[in-house]
Amino acid sequence: MEIGNLENHVQSEPMEESSQAQISHLALDIGGSLIKLVYFSQNSDGGCSKSSVQVSNGNEGGGPVLEGKLHFAKFETAKIHDCIDFIQSKQLRITGCQHNGASANEKCVIKATGGGAYKFADLFKEKLGICLGKEDEMDSLVAGANFLLKSVHDEAFTYMDGQKEFAQIDQEDLYPYLLVNIGSGVSMIKVDGPGKFERVSGTNVGGGTFWGLGRLLTKCKSFDELLELSHRGNNRVVDMLVGDIYGGTDYKKIGLSSTAIASSFGKAISDNKELEDYKPEDISRSLLRMISNNIGQISYLNALRFGLKRIFFAGFFLRGHAYTMDTIAVAVHFWSKGEAKAMFLRHEGFLGALGAFMSYEKHGFDNLMVHQLVQQSPSASHGGDKTHGPADSELNDNPSINCSIYLS
Amino acid sequence: MEIGNLENHVQSEPMEESSQAQISHLALDIGGSLIKLVYFSQNSDGGCSKSSVQVSNGNEGGGPVLEGKLHFAKFETAKIHDCIDFIQSKQLRITGCQHNGASANEKCVIKATGGGAYKFADLFKEKLGICLGKEDEMDSLVAGANFLLKSVHDEAFTYMDGQKEFAQIDQEDLYPYLLVNIGSGVSMIKVDGPGKFERVSGTNVGGGTFWGLGRLLTKCKSFDELLELSHRGNNRVVDMLVGDIYGGTDYKKIGLSSTAIASSFGKAISDNKELEDYKPEDISRSLLRMISNNIGQISYLNALRFGLKRIFFAGFFLRGHAYTMDTIAVAVHFWSKGEAKAMFLRHEGFLGALGAFMSYEKHGFDNLMVHQLVQQSPSASHGGDKTHGPADSELNDNPSINCSIYLS
Repeated sequence: MEIGNLENHVQSEPMEESSQAQISHLALDIGGSLIKLVYFSQNSDGGCSKSSVQVSNGNEGGGPVLEGKLHFAKFETAKIHDCIDFIQSKQLRITGCQHNGASANEKCVIKATGGGAYKFADLFKEKLGICLGKEDEMDSLVAGANFLLKSVHDEAFTYMDGQKEFAQIDQEDLYPYLLVNIGSGVSMIKVDGPGKFERVSGTNVGGGTFWGLGRLLTKCKSFDELLELSHRGNNRVVDMLVGDIYGGTDYKKIGLSSTAIASSFGKAISDNKELEDYKPEDISRSLLRMISNNIGQISYLNALRFGLKRIFFAGFFLRGHAYTMDTIAVAVHFWSKGEAKAMFLRHEGFLGALGAFMSYEKHGFDNLMVHQLVQQSPSASHGGDKTHGPADSELNDNPSINCSIYLS
Repeated sequence: MEIGNLENHVQSEPMEESSQAQISHLALDIGGSLIKLVYFSQNSDGGCSKSSVQVSNGNEGGGPVLEGKLHFAKFETAKIHDCIDFIQSKQLRITGCQHNGASANEKCVIKATGGGAYKFADLFKEKLGICLGKEDEMDSLVAGANFLLKSVHDEAFTYMDGQKEFAQIDQEDLYPYLLVNIGSGVSMIKVDGPGKFERVSGTNVGGGTFWGLGRLLTKCKSFDELLELSHRGNNRVVDMLVGDIYGGTDYKKIGLSSTAIASSFGKAISDNKELEDYKPEDISRSLLRMISNNIGQISYLNALRFGLKRIFFAGFFLRGHAYTMDTIAVAVHFWSKGEAKAMFLRHEGFLGALGAFMSYEKHGFDNLMVHQLVQQSPSASHGGDKTHGPADSELNDNPSINCSIYLS
């Protein structure tokens, strides 16, 4: 994909489209727990302009330009019908139907990735008359990550001791890196360049484990409620610390302080307390710390294997949650003795969906070109449509992105 | 430590000593969950013989020889008073008190390792008048492992597809290896030779996590009951498989079959079922598989770092449990693409205690020498004393070891 100009106009107003606004160019990432959507809506003037006016390079065809925004939304996979209703309510005018002169019922294809692109293909056909154009999950994750890292300003940041710091990524020094996508499960991908990558590892202890175990152990009704609970929790009530084993002292010889966790949930082996006797917030904290730390450790060991200094963590497990990122960053720092660095992405949950979106260009079935893009709105208008989107989308920091789509 | 002769006489009768039998030379490993004991009891004839009769080398001093057995027992750390009662009932004649001419109250030291050697030092002094001679935990684990691998026949074995196969360890080709000790937490130690080692990694997701989470999620009353339950469980009810996400198909491109676990406990995110709706056996199985697989993966990644082809797994988490060993072995095989091999030890839980036992020689405070030893009884007389030991010790395959102790 050719990277064209970077327009730097910033639009700070929040997303204001009504539920009737016309959208086009939608892509889906249907995972085990969540469906992620990326869709483009034209600015309210609705007009097309000639690209020569807008860009200085990157649109050699000189065709019309759609100006607008990329929006982000998510739904639980278990509530896929809400997602289908949402797409229907948006009166989606499918690109594939418009630009190839085909009738609406003839060839409506939207790009989709994740396992659900296979699992729910029939459902989309039946309910919306839409074919899901399947894109490989790893291809999409990598395309989405590369896009964000190359084209969106203030996308990547570090997190340490409660401090978020945006990082300027030197484009000449981006590759290779390790991409760790934490969805229900976790994929670890060594990325060597655009389209050049290998899935080198992963773990089945991921976001689905946190939410699944968390649901069973607490009475939480949502992932975000569980995450919120962990803020107020104290894992030392549940975890067995080095000091608990050593009578309050460190095990200095091997560098373990008395407050290091020796065994997650190790205090719960006590006969004296049942599940009801533990506070849900303490359990949530312990669980979050166990899983985040484990992912950080396995990620570091894989980065080490291939000599990768930078690890980008993404996926909806993170949700911009400070404590999660802090734990991962500390784990990477601890295990690598400061050699490797954990970084995070603002649009963490949408790599796959963005990658599927970018693939409209790659496949060229309607000669659409998605060019470059711009700076995200700093006011952070939120991902989901508040009427139709899932209720917890307010928690996410997935601002819409101003962009232009160049049609050939 | 000099390795002396290997006597190959096999005694097949089970341990028959009464609770009043005299024992000496006891060592302890007091961990976060369990106390492990190794103690020596003389054969019933009670006699000392001159070592020249018994050995062809290794006892240059030519002093008296005690012939007998090393026994193994364990207690829950939370029930440390049972352990103290057990030691008292055995009328332990502490070596340190006997052989230095000191009175029983003057200088009674027994070797102990693990964090509890620090935590419970005052308790042992108060209840038994015994000083705990503290030995470093990692030193002890490594000394115990090296001892078992060098001196005890049919100690190490592989486990794959339900088949246990004893391995002949070539002494010239033993080092380096990775020792993974799975107690409440997990330590990973690169062993380069006798006394030459480094703790290179570890994880806080260990046996304490299995038992702690397992207790909270099921109504099991003991670790072994939880382990037993897992036999009958089906983790697919609880785990999210690749096929669950992909609608029954594989994700072939990255080598994940439809039955691979994408997310441990990932099916439990469903709104439709609460904890009570899941069978404890399915939960136990999923938990065991999650933790075993995770340990296998992190172990492999550490073996890879240092080019170690052999990984010995030990610690009381295993308990000779087929499914646990199978999962770990499969994980090592899968992640290493067959390059690395998981091996197990029959006296898996007693490395630290054995290492502490061996240290009587190293420190020489009473000029005791522990020389070599012999073959374990094939009839597998069990570790714990059935009257005083913990009730679940029947599950373990920790046969006593015939041995001779050479006194200078």
